[in-house]
Amino acid sequence: MIHIYTGNGKGKTTAALGLIIRAIGNGKRVCLIQFMKKNFEYGEIKFLENVSGIDIFQFGTDQLIDPNNPDEIDFKEAESGYKKVREALNSGKYDLIVIDEINVAVKWKLLPLEKQLELMDIKTDAEVVMTGRYASPEIIKRADLVTEMLEIKHYFNEGVQARKGVEF
Amino acid sequence: MIHIYTGNGKGKTTAALGLIIRAIGNGKRVCLIQFMKKNFEYGEIKFLENVSGIDIFQFGTDQLIDPNNPDEIDFKEAESGYKKVREALNSGKYDLIVIDEINVAVKWKLLPLEKQLELMDIKTDAEVVMTGRYASPEIIKRADLVTEMLEIKHYFNEGVQARKGVEF
Repeated sequence: MIHIYTGNGKGKTTAALGLIIRAIGNGKRVCLIQFMKKNFEYGEIKFLENVSGIDIFQFGTDQLIDPNNPDEIDFKEAESGYKKVREALNSGKYDLIVIDEINVAVKWKLLPLEKQLELMDIKTDAEVVMTGRYASPEIIKRADLVTEMLEIKHYFNEGVQARKGVEF
Repeated sequence: MIHIYTGNGKGKTTAALGLIIRAIGNGKRVCLIQFMKKNFEYGEIKFLENVSGIDIFQFGTDQLIDPNNPDEIDFKEAESGYKKVREALNSGKYDLIVIDEINVAVKWKLLPLEKQLELMDIKTDAEVVMTGRYASPEIIKRADLVTEMLEIKHYFNEGVQARKGVEF
């Protein structure tokens, strides 16, 4: 089954992280592939690095991307991420494959939509989870489960900044 | 800050679980209190039981509750859960307190809405997360962050049953 967690609200990546620990708790093998995230001190990565049963791969740089003017490296990293996802899907090694922020990588045209759709067409017994705002209608149509995380209220709008341990 | 994860879509409890591992990865102390869940083989609990930095408490029975006709034990368990939440909020021991399914416990009148609001008024430095469908308007009004997990599409509607490692 292919899950999509999208929308403008908080809870997309964390929902995928929750599925990861649920799977690991049941003895499943997990692969986490993150787009546009690298070398940053995410609490969840610090934690999961020490957990057995999961392989983690990050593709991106430690710089913020300008969606209107990405660097060449951003395209290269996205392409490498795509190849790693394809490899993971074809490997038969995993029960759960989480592809974090791929929807945003596609929205920002770091990766063509066709490649995301191609990944969704790979036959696999793994549960596949794709996260990120801006999931395209084609992706939603192709998925088995779609949750839109809808922001009803967010403290960011009250001027609160992202906080270690809560947002990362 | 008080977060609410509500709505009819998949991802509410898992988003809270993701926040838990993010917090633990950053060295924070976590308390997970679950309403209406007990003794069931949840993958996430099997996993988190072996993690240091988290205390887990479950209140409920291993029987399904009939929302129109709960048993006396269901009310008693909900009341015990409420007391444990109050204790955790007042203890100063935790940086993150997750109160799983409390919105449903209130919707099903196992716990009065006034008690949920009272819990929200306890002064604490902890990040507080409340999950479950049917968060009431009063709860949404009082919260700092609310995400509605909106079901756009779910494989349950195609006849797929809950699966170990994915739904529990």
